[in-house]
Amino acid sequence: VDAHLVDSAIFGANWSTPESHALFSERSRVDRWLRILQSLGRAQADLGIVPESSARAIEAISIDEVDIAKVADRTRETAHSMLGLIGVLQDVLPTDAGEHVCYGATVQDVSDTSASLEIASLTSLIRRDLLGIEEKLLDLAERFRDTPMLGRTHGQPGAPISFGFKVAGWADEVARNIGRLDQGVERWAPAQLAGAVGVVAFHGPDALELRTRFAAGVGLTNPPITWTASRDRPAEFANFCGLVAQNLARIANEIYNLQREEIGEVAERTSGATVGSITMPHKRNPEGSEQVVTLARVIRSLAAVMTEGMVGDHERDGRTWKGEWLVLPQLGHHILASLSLADALVGGIEVDTDKMAQNLARFGHSESQELLRRLSLRVGKHAAQSELNRVYRAVRETGTPVAEQMSDMLTAEDLAGLDTPTLGAGPEMVDAVVTAARLRREAEQTA
Amino acid sequence: VDAHLVDSAIFGANWSTPESHALFSERSRVDRWLRILQSLGRAQADLGIVPESSARAIEAISIDEVDIAKVADRTRETAHSMLGLIGVLQDVLPTDAGEHVCYGATVQDVSDTSASLEIASLTSLIRRDLLGIEEKLLDLAERFRDTPMLGRTHGQPGAPISFGFKVAGWADEVARNIGRLDQGVERWAPAQLAGAVGVVAFHGPDALELRTRFAAGVGLTNPPITWTASRDRPAEFANFCGLVAQNLARIANEIYNLQREEIGEVAERTSGATVGSITMPHKRNPEGSEQVVTLARVIRSLAAVMTEGMVGDHERDGRTWKGEWLVLPQLGHHILASLSLADALVGGIEVDTDKMAQNLARFGHSESQELLRRLSLRVGKHAAQSELNRVYRAVRETGTPVAEQMSDMLTAEDLAGLDTPTLGAGPEMVDAVVTAARLRREAEQTA
Amino acid sequence: VDAHLVDSAIFGANWSTPESHALFSERSRVDRWLRILQSLGRAQADLGIVPESSARAIEAISIDEVDIAKVADRTRETAHSMLGLIGVLQDVLPTDAGEHVCYGATVQDVSDTSASLEIASLTSLIRRDLLGIEEKLLDLAERFRDTPMLGRTHGQPGAPISFGFKVAGWADEVARNIGRLDQGVERWAPAQLAGAVGVVAFHGPDALELRTRFAAGVGLTNPPITWTASRDRPAEFANFCGLVAQNLARIANEIYNLQREEIGEVAERTSGATVGSITMPHKRNPEGSEQVVTLARVIRSLAAVMTEGMVGDHERDGRTWKGEWLVLPQLGHHILASLSLADALVGGIEVDTDKMAQNLARFGHSESQELLRRLSLRVGKHAAQSELNRVYRAVRETGTPVAEQMSDMLTAEDLAGLDTPTLGAGPEMVDAVVTAARLRREAEQTA
Amino acid sequence: VDAHLVDSAIFGANWSTPESHALFSERSRVDRWLRILQSLGRAQADLGIVPESSARAIEAISIDEVDIAKVADRTRETAHSMLGLIGVLQDVLPTDAGEHVCYGATVQDVSDTSASLEIASLTSLIRRDLLGIEEKLLDLAERFRDTPMLGRTHGQPGAPISFGFKVAGWADEVARNIGRLDQGVERWAPAQLAGAVGVVAFHGPDALELRTRFAAGVGLTNPPITWTASRDRPAEFANFCGLVAQNLARIANEIYNLQREEIGEVAERTSGATVGSITMPHKRNPEGSEQVVTLARVIRSLAAVMTEGMVGDHERDGRTWKGEWLVLPQLGHHILASLSLADALVGGIEVDTDKMAQNLARFGHSESQELLRRLSLRVGKHAAQSELNRVYRAVRETGTPVAEQMSDMLTAEDLAGLDTPTLGAGPEMVDAVVTAARLRREAEQTA
Repeated sequence: VDAHLVDSAIFGANWSTPESHALFSERSRVDRWLRILQSLGRAQADLGIVPESSARAIEAISIDEVDIAKVADRTRETAHSMLGLIGVLQDVLPTDAGEHVCYGATVQDVSDTSASLEIASLTSLIRRDLLGIEEKLLDLAERFRDTPMLGRTHGQPGAPISFGFKVAGWADEVARNIGRLDQGVERWAPAQLAGAVGVVAFHGPDALELRTRFAAGVGLTNPPITWTASRDRPAEFANFCGLVAQNLARIANEIYNLQREEIGEVAERTSGATVGSITMPHKRNPEGSEQVVTLARVIRSLAAVMTEGMVGDHERDGRTWKGEWLVLPQLGHHILASLSLADALVGGIEVDTDKMAQNLARFGHSESQELLRRLSLRVGKHAAQSELNRVYRAVRETGTPVAEQMSDMLTAEDLAGLDTPTLGAGPEMVDAVVTAARLRREAEQTA
Repeated sequence: VDAHLVDSAIFGANWSTPESHALFSERSRVDRWLRILQSLGRAQADLGIVPESSARAIEAISIDEVDIAKVADRTRETAHSMLGLIGVLQDVLPTDAGEHVCYGATVQDVSDTSASLEIASLTSLIRRDLLGIEEKLLDLAERFRDTPMLGRTHGQPGAPISFGFKVAGWADEVARNIGRLDQGVERWAPAQLAGAVGVVAFHGPDALELRTRFAAGVGLTNPPITWTASRDRPAEFANFCGLVAQNLARIANEIYNLQREEIGEVAERTSGATVGSITMPHKRNPEGSEQVVTLARVIRSLAAVMTEGMVGDHERDGRTWKGEWLVLPQLGHHILASLSLADALVGGIEVDTDKMAQNLARFGHSESQELLRRLSLRVGKHAAQSELNRVYRAVRETGTPVAEQMSDMLTAEDLAGLDTPTLGAGPEMVDAVVTAARLRREAEQTA
Repeated sequence: VDAHLVDSAIFGANWSTPESHALFSERSRVDRWLRILQSLGRAQADLGIVPESSARAIEAISIDEVDIAKVADRTRETAHSMLGLIGVLQDVLPTDAGEHVCYGATVQDVSDTSASLEIASLTSLIRRDLLGIEEKLLDLAERFRDTPMLGRTHGQPGAPISFGFKVAGWADEVARNIGRLDQGVERWAPAQLAGAVGVVAFHGPDALELRTRFAAGVGLTNPPITWTASRDRPAEFANFCGLVAQNLARIANEIYNLQREEIGEVAERTSGATVGSITMPHKRNPEGSEQVVTLARVIRSLAAVMTEGMVGDHERDGRTWKGEWLVLPQLGHHILASLSLADALVGGIEVDTDKMAQNLARFGHSESQELLRRLSLRVGKHAAQSELNRVYRAVRETGTPVAEQMSDMLTAEDLAGLDTPTLGAGPEMVDAVVTAARLRREAEQTA
Repeated sequence: VDAHLVDSAIFGANWSTPESHALFSERSRVDRWLRILQSLGRAQADLGIVPESSARAIEAISIDEVDIAKVADRTRETAHSMLGLIGVLQDVLPTDAGEHVCYGATVQDVSDTSASLEIASLTSLIRRDLLGIEEKLLDLAERFRDTPMLGRTHGQPGAPISFGFKVAGWADEVARNIGRLDQGVERWAPAQLAGAVGVVAFHGPDALELRTRFAAGVGLTNPPITWTASRDRPAEFANFCGLVAQNLARIANEIYNLQREEIGEVAERTSGATVGSITMPHKRNPEGSEQVVTLARVIRSLAAVMTEGMVGDHERDGRTWKGEWLVLPQLGHHILASLSLADALVGGIEVDTDKMAQNLARFGHSESQELLRRLSLRVGKHAAQSELNRVYRAVRETGTPVAEQMSDMLTAEDLAGLDTPTLGAGPEMVDAVVTAARLRREAEQTA
């Protein structure tokens, strides 16, 4: 019962959250299946398909009456995913009502509807967490809108940016993910009432009305057609989780790198009790950042299984569908863990603006672009670049300072102020991102 | 020059299309880069950043003046992706204008803008092809709305559906992909004007106005902030292609299986000249279907590279970005090939309704669900199921016919008409899908 | 504690085995870590690095004395993976010995050595299971060495093979996997004693001797150099599991397809209590086969995470290494489940040789290759093929029998015996595979 | 013809090599197919299956006589992969010999044998390149055996290692890959002679003798049984390429990070003509390193397609097999490009030992492990660690130097020499790796 790391008391917290455990515990899943059967019975009674008394008896069952160990035993005996639960429910129901539980529904009706409820819950938690992260990022972006630091490309110091500009780029990506979520959720999580092969033949002429009521009862959208074989719905959700996880991993990866002591511009907050290393007592490791990257790798790989599963045979394909039984909950654990860790990361980030300034001054010839710009005005852009390529090669090889080499090409005036970082349009772009996000957020709050 | 299968004269047509070659040939890419530089020059001249005469000279260059072999030589010499082209352009430009070509732009400004133009073109071609496929599917769904065939689950014959119901499920998935495209495209393909590290510092105070004009000039959206490090944009497009490819592969996989001679319900159309096998002259192979499945696997794997690439360092990461240079065109070739093949498949599908009827009669006890329904009314659902499980086990083991075994439980009347397939709500769902799609399509045409 | 499907009482058995639970339960992992610390203490005492009394006290601890809940609490408090366990061990040790537990070792020394022990155990279980499966396959191959059935290519009936030939192809692949295992295992699972950054500096001049003794103590190979950052070792194992899983999935996929009722040549054995469907009582689903395919997809995706993790930073990279903590146990659960299911599949396979004969007679013009051979002798190979392409097109389109069409090209004698399946060199190849495997197996048993 | 980046004159060199182009050009592939057909004809003539005169005529054909454009046209007409070539060969052969070309062989016999020849060539080139890289790494490991630098874990400065120790870890991984290659190659690349469905029925009783001679003729191993459906053979090769690519990418990733100007310990060699950036003239980018990482990502993803393809239907599955037609050559281009770039990287690496020493002194409290060791002798390991955790937290927060804080716990003598890096057993491990590799290499040279 604790043979997967998600369920480990010692290590589970790195891979899941209390909310993901509440959502995916065995009891919670059985309870969800029970509530689905209750909604089905209710809709069927309202349409006269089963007696009202049966629906009421089914609705009256509490998860506390369901002996999960017995469900497990009977599931193994019959090698059927639902008969265990049906049998145990029949035990606690009057005989007649027992015949009406799971009336005409297939396993996939229950399991897909349950999966859609899970996806709906996850979507809502993900949205909440993305909004929370976005808020922290917007604050950071504003706070450090004009704080100069080195921009880096190809891992090398380049020209100046502001830290707020960097953060605004993260926030903009988060905003796109909120947009994806808002557009995608309508496709991800409909109810399923397919019956044996999808045409809901068991329920007679009221079948589609039954599906409409059932969907309303469980609180999900009513699909235009059975989707037992159309797994693009959960696959799109899984791919969305992949984008979110990678978004967060990019932020975490950046913190990991900027926290390198040789750079030292930002750091994860650590609590006083945290121990970095038991062999190197000075160590302070960016373990939260690392874990967000790790989670993203696992999430991406699970999303790939879901996407692969879109190609299945005929009206139902166990090879695809059962894969989702494993993958969706695991995806749920990991994406919530990732969001939770990322929230702590961006909420607790320590920013060392002095170090940023020092690095700007020390490394990377952050003046080179500005110098190129100025020299371009004199000699042309590409001529300037050739010249400066030569100049900087000489800096590297002989150490001759730039100014000295340039003295016959540029006046002292031309060379003035080169050490003042030019932030370009960075701050304006911060404003654009922040303003758009704040407007959207306010509109949502007042809606 | 023909060492990748996409470029093979013999086999390339299975992996690409004339349109994908037109889009991604070397000449075409160089031409696109040239046009981007022309748009940039125009916008810069309009803002007074470069002289009007330079912009005009740059605009006047034709791709025919660009010696691609020379571009290649200089690219290798400098190990820089753009200097080759810039040098060759300088050769054909007046000295002054030569200094203003690619003025202050980085390679990624050009290559990202080019990639966005490619994505925009691909998106438009994909949309056209999805609409074409949808049209054929809607026709098929209507035509075979009431044509009974076996529904199959777990690879086994189950209860009846109609062929139109199956096709409507495909069409509904295609419609969702059109929806995804229409929502996603605004995020996928903006212009890029980032400069050295993203803050467009080279261009001074007019930088954002320059970007606005440049984006308009190349016909792309203007992003709120630099996205050199935010690769969720192309990654989302790649994942979308994965969903489309899997959608098509599901259709193709179904044709492959239903074309099995033992089933024989549908077949790919083949031309008279087609040869199936050189060792088994009777063979008629579903090679188009197979190829659509194969393409989907490659497309998924390329999409995974794009998604992985979302996590990069700092303001530009060559490890990610250069991967896109390879992956995006290859993805484009394959998705267009897949759409083209799938269009031929669904356009030429041969449907054998007699064989469908025969299989319904011969295999799968397609009456079993209906029998369960009727017996359920007498003895209860789960009791009926237990009983029928026993009955069908006896059928398998002893061959005793169902009716004979049931004679003491059901009257002759109860057993009547069991061999008439019950299509359930299948045809109604076909109508729901077709109606919604036709409404959307008509609205679009009149718009 | 049961929020991952592996740990579900109801469904866990599809994804794991009792042996995988025994190996990867929390208690089992803590016990393994404890035994590693005991081996370390012993080796250190023998070299005089810690007092003999401390080593003895550490060796005397039983897992029953370890309060796992307390380990969990302290792990969370310190955010350090080992301090929880160390603290609890110190609680039960004399003060002095408490200072010597985990003396100079890092978390990764313990966790990598533990992972190697897990890999070693898994390797041994996998080998046992592969041998068991191979045995059943060799028996089947021999038993059905000369049993004709349709060979199929591109999903279409082709020319005859024997069922034994098909099975021998599976067995040959299993044999290659045993070969891969025997060659690979020496690389997969060495001990780790790296210390802080890999050079084992804490332990002074005896460091390498200590590692030699420690490796012997835990029963693992002694690597030439620290491999904290060389994750090709576990990655190779994961990729090997991928090959095994796909090998088994190919067998399962074939059973799934041959069990299609329209083909009906083989079937999974089902027990009397098994229920196929609760809506279609006649159904008999190949659920074991499906699950083996599903498991292979998850296993492949986990192996991809391990391979991706080979690229890490510097001397230890948490992003890679922590991923293995999750992935390796999950891989272990799934590969053992896959082997167990596959063993049941091939052990219980029901072969319907009558149906094989019927299908040969009914479908696929299995005579076409032989006819091509005979006609080739008269008119040349390619001329014969063109002719026969025409003939069979006419069969499809007009129904004119082959013999009738050929009467002016071939004599009655030429056409005689065409309906006797030609098994070619199939049976000889069965012998080659079986003989080689039996020789290897006997050599192993007498060794 | 240049619509894939591999075939681009401008950018192809980043993704392929002259050798990969020589191996995979269209002409080269057609020539290989021709030589296979010649070997087949020869073996058939020797066994009296075709006339000697036909074999000789076929053997006499030169690739120069084959009109590839015509092959392409006829391939498209027939939609058959081989009929185009067969037809063109028939054009240049006497009628009789024309009937004997590709006598009884299927497309897959030719294409699989061709793929095995490609794999054999690639394997040999990979081995050569791995040996070349290993040599350079062994030299580096020896040269910098005792050169101290910071070891880093979790991206943070830790304790000292030597640069030679780091390099020896790379070399050890390369050596394992050479070992994998030497063991795997016997499985990767056998000849194929399967005929229609695998039992080689066309060729009569001499079929297996024919296969033996054919395999010898093409210079490949003779498999025990047909492997048209056993794709573990090429999949294992692809996974091997994945391990090699990741091995190289780990080295490249390390160079990328150590070349960060803030670290500056190693750098890629650049030629005088190389230009790093056209907007930041001072930039020197690790583009070779980046590309090696990028290539590994694509290679891994292609290997995943091959592994997925192991699960196919029946005796031949076009969905799998045709995927290999695309994937294997692309894999070949990329792995050779990766090896070539990696060879240049390790051959041209610039090592700044001064910077290593400075970083050791400046960052990371590289004395902390040694201090822990010394204090452990006084107060016990874990007590020492707690104490030092406190000490270093104070260093971070208040700046109080370590020595000052420790003055009441350790004597001046205890604190002496802490700034001399302790290399531990690192140099000895370098020796172990280098010695083992040199012995293996010398044994090979004298063999």
